[in-house]
Amino acid sequence: MSNVRTEKDLLGTKEVPAQAYYGIQTLRAVENFPITGIPPHKEMIRALAAIKKAAAMANRDVGVLRSDIADAVIRAAEEVLEGRLHEQFIVDSIQGGAGTSMNMNANEVIANRAIELMGGQKGEYIKCSPNTHVNMAQSTNDVFPTAIRIASLNLAAGVIESLSSLKSAFETKAKEFDQVIKMGRTHLQDAVPIRMGQEFGAYARVIGRDIARIRRSLDNLREVNMGATAVGTGLNAMPEYITKVTEYLRQITGLDLKRADDLVDATQNTDAYTEVSAALKICSVNLSKICNDIRLMASGPRTGLGELKLPPRQPGSSIMPGKVNPVMAEVVNQVAFQIQGNDQTICLASEAGQLELNVMEPVLVFNLLQSLSILQNAVRVFTIHLVQGLEANMERCKELVERSVGIITAINPHVGYETASMVAKEAITTGRSVREICLERGILTKEELDVILNPLEMTTPGIAGAQLLFGDRK
Amino acid sequence: MSNVRTEKDLLGTKEVPAQAYYGIQTLRAVENFPITGIPPHKEMIRALAAIKKAAAMANRDVGVLRSDIADAVIRAAEEVLEGRLHEQFIVDSIQGGAGTSMNMNANEVIANRAIELMGGQKGEYIKCSPNTHVNMAQSTNDVFPTAIRIASLNLAAGVIESLSSLKSAFETKAKEFDQVIKMGRTHLQDAVPIRMGQEFGAYARVIGRDIARIRRSLDNLREVNMGATAVGTGLNAMPEYITKVTEYLRQITGLDLKRADDLVDATQNTDAYTEVSAALKICSVNLSKICNDIRLMASGPRTGLGELKLPPRQPGSSIMPGKVNPVMAEVVNQVAFQIQGNDQTICLASEAGQLELNVMEPVLVFNLLQSLSILQNAVRVFTIHLVQGLEANMERCKELVERSVGIITAINPHVGYETASMVAKEAITTGRSVREICLERGILTKEELDVILNPLEMTTPGIAGAQLLFGDRK
Amino acid sequence: MSNVRTEKDLLGTKEVPAQAYYGIQTLRAVENFPITGIPPHKEMIRALAAIKKAAAMANRDVGVLRSDIADAVIRAAEEVLEGRLHEQFIVDSIQGGAGTSMNMNANEVIANRAIELMGGQKGEYIKCSPNTHVNMAQSTNDVFPTAIRIASLNLAAGVIESLSSLKSAFETKAKEFDQVIKMGRTHLQDAVPIRMGQEFGAYARVIGRDIARIRRSLDNLREVNMGATAVGTGLNAMPEYITKVTEYLRQITGLDLKRADDLVDATQNTDAYTEVSAALKICSVNLSKICNDIRLMASGPRTGLGELKLPPRQPGSSIMPGKVNPVMAEVVNQVAFQIQGNDQTICLASEAGQLELNVMEPVLVFNLLQSLSILQNAVRVFTIHLVQGLEANMERCKELVERSVGIITAINPHVGYETASMVAKEAITTGRSVREICLERGILTKEELDVILNPLEMTTPGIAGAQLLFGDRK
Amino acid sequence: MSNVRTEKDLLGTKEVPAQAYYGIQTLRAVENFPITGIPPHKEMIRALAAIKKAAAMANRDVGVLRSDIADAVIRAAEEVLEGRLHEQFIVDSIQGGAGTSMNMNANEVIANRAIELMGGQKGEYIKCSPNTHVNMAQSTNDVFPTAIRIASLNLAAGVIESLSSLKSAFETKAKEFDQVIKMGRTHLQDAVPIRMGQEFGAYARVIGRDIARIRRSLDNLREVNMGATAVGTGLNAMPEYITKVTEYLRQITGLDLKRADDLVDATQNTDAYTEVSAALKICSVNLSKICNDIRLMASGPRTGLGELKLPPRQPGSSIMPGKVNPVMAEVVNQVAFQIQGNDQTICLASEAGQLELNVMEPVLVFNLLQSLSILQNAVRVFTIHLVQGLEANMERCKELVERSVGIITAINPHVGYETASMVAKEAITTGRSVREICLERGILTKEELDVILNPLEMTTPGIAGAQLLFGDRK
Repeated sequence: MSNVRTEKDLLGTKEVPAQAYYGIQTLRAVENFPITGIPPHKEMIRALAAIKKAAAMANRDVGVLRSDIADAVIRAAEEVLEGRLHEQFIVDSIQGGAGTSMNMNANEVIANRAIELMGGQKGEYIKCSPNTHVNMAQSTNDVFPTAIRIASLNLAAGVIESLSSLKSAFETKAKEFDQVIKMGRTHLQDAVPIRMGQEFGAYARVIGRDIARIRRSLDNLREVNMGATAVGTGLNAMPEYITKVTEYLRQITGLDLKRADDLVDATQNTDAYTEVSAALKICSVNLSKICNDIRLMASGPRTGLGELKLPPRQPGSSIMPGKVNPVMAEVVNQVAFQIQGNDQTICLASEAGQLELNVMEPVLVFNLLQSLSILQNAVRVFTIHLVQGLEANMERCKELVERSVGIITAINPHVGYETASMVAKEAITTGRSVREICLERGILTKEELDVILNPLEMTTPGIAGAQLLFGDRK
Repeated sequence: MSNVRTEKDLLGTKEVPAQAYYGIQTLRAVENFPITGIPPHKEMIRALAAIKKAAAMANRDVGVLRSDIADAVIRAAEEVLEGRLHEQFIVDSIQGGAGTSMNMNANEVIANRAIELMGGQKGEYIKCSPNTHVNMAQSTNDVFPTAIRIASLNLAAGVIESLSSLKSAFETKAKEFDQVIKMGRTHLQDAVPIRMGQEFGAYARVIGRDIARIRRSLDNLREVNMGATAVGTGLNAMPEYITKVTEYLRQITGLDLKRADDLVDATQNTDAYTEVSAALKICSVNLSKICNDIRLMASGPRTGLGELKLPPRQPGSSIMPGKVNPVMAEVVNQVAFQIQGNDQTICLASEAGQLELNVMEPVLVFNLLQSLSILQNAVRVFTIHLVQGLEANMERCKELVERSVGIITAINPHVGYETASMVAKEAITTGRSVREICLERGILTKEELDVILNPLEMTTPGIAGAQLLFGDRK
Repeated sequence: MSNVRTEKDLLGTKEVPAQAYYGIQTLRAVENFPITGIPPHKEMIRALAAIKKAAAMANRDVGVLRSDIADAVIRAAEEVLEGRLHEQFIVDSIQGGAGTSMNMNANEVIANRAIELMGGQKGEYIKCSPNTHVNMAQSTNDVFPTAIRIASLNLAAGVIESLSSLKSAFETKAKEFDQVIKMGRTHLQDAVPIRMGQEFGAYARVIGRDIARIRRSLDNLREVNMGATAVGTGLNAMPEYITKVTEYLRQITGLDLKRADDLVDATQNTDAYTEVSAALKICSVNLSKICNDIRLMASGPRTGLGELKLPPRQPGSSIMPGKVNPVMAEVVNQVAFQIQGNDQTICLASEAGQLELNVMEPVLVFNLLQSLSILQNAVRVFTIHLVQGLEANMERCKELVERSVGIITAINPHVGYETASMVAKEAITTGRSVREICLERGILTKEELDVILNPLEMTTPGIAGAQLLFGDRK
Repeated sequence: MSNVRTEKDLLGTKEVPAQAYYGIQTLRAVENFPITGIPPHKEMIRALAAIKKAAAMANRDVGVLRSDIADAVIRAAEEVLEGRLHEQFIVDSIQGGAGTSMNMNANEVIANRAIELMGGQKGEYIKCSPNTHVNMAQSTNDVFPTAIRIASLNLAAGVIESLSSLKSAFETKAKEFDQVIKMGRTHLQDAVPIRMGQEFGAYARVIGRDIARIRRSLDNLREVNMGATAVGTGLNAMPEYITKVTEYLRQITGLDLKRADDLVDATQNTDAYTEVSAALKICSVNLSKICNDIRLMASGPRTGLGELKLPPRQPGSSIMPGKVNPVMAEVVNQVAFQIQGNDQTICLASEAGQLELNVMEPVLVFNLLQSLSILQNAVRVFTIHLVQGLEANMERCKELVERSVGIITAINPHVGYETASMVAKEAITTGRSVREICLERGILTKEELDVILNPLEMTTPGIAGAQLLFGDRK
């Protein structure tokens, strides 16, 4: 028995490994696109299988696809959905042709598996053709965008879950650190006291907005264009089929999908993807800022700010013994950079759409699914391996507050900005404390200073020592 | 009388032009930041004035600011709100210090104007001090972010208005072009027929989503952090003041502002701005794609696609007589590029926030307000000068459809993908028509072809000539 | 025999698969960084091996590493250089810790292989320790940057080679198309005639500049910081070793490496990488523009410009029979988008360096090596599968020139811009030819028009028909 | 006398203010493009004037432009070169039409001024026509790119000058801080000692590479395409003229310009601009990193690292008395962000070129010239107001080194990485010093420790205390 079979298409013939489930068009794509070496994302493969299953069901129902073929296609697609035959998806993630090669890879694998299930030999396309049967009433131009949406929605659920855990972890720390009074800093310069719990509460809040933003960005993603076929006009797709295929897809995926109101629009435009990417990008910017803060507050152990202690995760240096680095924060920073770069690629790809179709979707989905995956992954380990184990160095925080000049702000309402400025200047120049100078100069009494310079008081709204000014109105 | 006056601050003294409303801190900033030569945006100046007015009202109400001073500050701020004294805002748009210079410029101008209104001389800060009175209970760190939000909201209203007009214009054209059958193209290669009205309907829809996205992005922008003072803890701001200042600000601006639930968060984070910028960026990507399409369809007049006729706006060339170029689309493309670059700057600035404050807000707001302004401006002229005057070249569209091979897709369900491929290949190679070849080869009859190859039929869902296959089920 | 062994580090103990060449620190990194699922680039692994070999040789020479250990390390490193044991490099491409995990993965694999070669069992680090011996006199902070440079230089050679082939292919086409007169277009509007060979000559030239730019960008990359150790001060690296290690590295890699003059600078800064990435980005922008042109000129076959014929590479559509798309150009566009996004990530990572080190190098090198790889790959297939097979559609080009109004520009010097404008306007409005109108209006004679409106004449400098104006001065 | 005059072009007539030097085409552009409100950059206006002068001289020489007209045009252009009439350049910086409006604005202003100089009235274009005379043998497509190049080269000289001053200032500080031993940090964690002079030396070096990169990026910029006319073929430009115009331009500008070898290439491609922008971007990334370092080292005064003292430039807060912020570093960060965003816009614009021309050049030049201007401005004030006044806090640096654990690295070669790790761990946990633990545990003697733990020794290559290991080989 030969170890190859010969297949044929518009451009001629080609030998395919006899055992391969993929066929001639997949092979052509492999020759044409040896770019990244990275195959399609698992979720993309599964999404394509879900679509092929739904289409076969719908085509069977409307009577254009023979039941026995439909059943075989459905069973073959289910196998792929369950994770089998994924190694047969060998086209490169970055490919020309608007995803046609990925779609044809799916059509060929499912057709050949269906043929087998019907008792035939791989390549006997008369029994079940990749184009005529598996791709029936479909075009890459509706299949591929729909697959992107399904895969993205599935991954986005994990992103939201991991961000929610992070938010909870920050909230827990906000409570835990509620009484940790530390120096607030603006411009990296001493400002006024703040509680560390307030800082972590702010982190929780911004992540909360990120979750809401990402969630909202999924709305447009749920509108799929199955039935659009080539350019959105629905040519060759029976109206009954169009209705049924999306309904089946909802059932198969468990996602709240709906048919786009305007299939021409849904085929031509990719703003639903840039919208998700933008939400991820904003989240990544926020995460990066938070990680920078944490790395800064954890700087030290002896020559930095030293306000936070991170759980050690791995030896930090191949040369410096005992060094432990904030590696979990650093990896999140890097993931944030990757997501921002990916967003750039996604926008470039989106902008390059022309007329009825965006042919740059393969690079777009490659980046979008990567962003979703790495964000979920990074946030998960960041939460578990860093945030949950964070400890405040209370003594250090206290020491810094006491040493600071910034508490001068509290005496502002009592003596005016100009006088306060002079005290501050003298304190900084001489290294003496604000309290000392105020006393010596007779600016405020010891009793007044005790009230005004209470750090905890300074971390809540109001004029510290307002009662000295207005009675007890604060 | 001297033409200068001498002012004093923490760092020493400085001569200020006697007629100037700004003071020493403004002058220091002018020396420090001779960067772009571009002064603050008018809307930013007005927003600062609104805040100063609201703060004076609130401080007066809670009894910490003397009524006569409050009244003078309020009147001075009103003048700035009405557009006066804007030439006194001379600090550069890009400045260090987190906006302190812009805030102090406002404080100084309003203080000096208030002093005048109270019968004093500019510089008599004993009457009304920029810091102690005009900036009372405020910090740049709550004033500046609040001003960004007010200015952005005001400009965003114009953006939404101009995009709404564009959407309407596209909808009008969608109706007007509803019967213009033209060749659909994917990959810039002939695909299947589509109606030009469908294309313009899709443009209207994507702009519709952009409007919704931009509108939604304003929600977080409405949360202001007045009362946060230096780091969000509200130090030196009386609780009653915090409540009142936002309420007054709502009244003065007419915007649906609310106090942020967490003032530490609202002082530290800038995601509300990146969110707006992201929405503008997505819109700009979509606009750019649409403009590319229009320029492509209008290419010619003799050697391009020639499907669209644009209203001539200006001679197109200094050397080629008679040339008319799609200048209104080109300017939108360029504005789209600018907005994307601005978004990049905004994200970099946002990510650079540290701990309690983002000191990079000046460059952020410079770009955000520019994006809002130029988007509104460009969309407005694009709508009026291009979209509303668009005409379809129906004859040309018809001619191209008739010449095309892509209509072969419609015979697919009748003869199978493989046979259809062979007919297509022969048509392309020989230059003969699909119809001719089908007839000659006896693949379909003339009657069948008349039904199947009806271009209008091809632009709606269904198998063209489905009745030939299934009776009259279509 | 147990299928695990127990290893120990600063943080405790851990079980490692008995057969694994990697050790405890690699395992920790695998747990910490399950991010992309993509292992280090092959060229990065090989570069690390080259460094370990060179360091062992240098340490042996200066007498700090025992000869037998050195020899074993050298042999182990050679195996990795030759491509063996690459499956043992299991840390993720995106990782915290500035590459320490990748360096330790190399140290552990090479140490364990060296131990085996010395007759020991994996894990017997007393024989050869990953830190003390394999990493001797090294820090991740000199090893990792040096490895990035070596890997990048090796890949860059392939990039230059593939771009050189592309340039040659364009030059060949420039000659082949030298006599193809076609309509030049500006603003996608008809301009004046040009030869297609001139267009392809311009493509060759811009690619030529790209090659020069990329080549020049490698200069700084050749400066390696071996010997810098932790922060560039060379602590723990003997001066003799520093000299020798770079010399050995030159020999092993065959690259023209040199020791950086300032090791602190070379350890801290990453501009050498951003410089390469910038050169790749510029190239990608140029390639994208060229691909857009080719796709535009090849648009059709019946309803586009139709000036170029592309070699068919694969069926273009799963639904539209006979469709052939410009897939090889599309994949280059997408690679160009990816490289631009990667450049963004690289710049963000570069900017995030702090003080003595840039800890974001892992994501930086991940993107840089990807950009180099995919650019090389895409350009290679683009050259072979598209450019070399391009054909001009001469008849179509000729037909469009003859139909065009743009040739009016040539009569400009003879009749003035204003008169020419009127003729052009009439030609466009009425659909008549420029020649016809000029004749009818008596603007120029038939003989004059024959001279002036010669398209070939118009494609070279000079006033067409200058002799009519100035005698024979042209 | 009427205060308007009526002008006429291809599209009809229009009233122009009688006193205006600009004409109908400028007015059309003003109506079409009310986008940014920012007029063309002064250097761009001057560059256009230089070109008009050179072209008039060349056209006069080759005998196609009457001497009296040429002379008037030359004199008018000289006035603009000298800075007069700049207020007559009123078209917006962002405009459709590939710069035609900016070119026509120049043509009209110079024509009308020339007419006046010849004794005529503005608008008497029979005497001197904007198109026929001022624009003779030119097209926007050669004029505009050439102007971009001239303007960029002129501004780039200032950038290089300001960067050179910065480099010198860093070198001065490197010497000044040569004996300031401080703690080196990697990952913001204590590493090993370094001299502050080494850090500033590294800053000088990276800026040195930036200067070299920017300088090199100007090479391609010097190739101008005067004589290309519409599409690079030189139609309507006499060969003698082409040679002469560039030669005159060299003389007028004093720049080392040369005619591009391939005018089609030079008209079509914009990589020379992206190349400059990339060099500026890399520089901005480096500057941003340096500013981040400086802000970090200057953090404090009481609760930060406190290693550097910055010259105070302005009061730092409107609420916190005595606060002084690193405003000069912050403004450089922001300029760096702006330049990176601008680079993005520039790349998008560059990529959008199509066929014979890049019509997006106006937004490209707007951003490129802004980047050049603001970089020069920001670096200049940063050098003067910050770098030159920097002071090291030697006591603080010394105190931190002494407190640090990182010096443990030096004992590594003496006791092995594993033992050293244990000592480090104990030091960090207990707060005791490395020296103390080593002594107590008998790991090293007091004498050995004195030699090994000498911080200055640690800042130069070699094993600290190598003589203990190898005799006096170090």
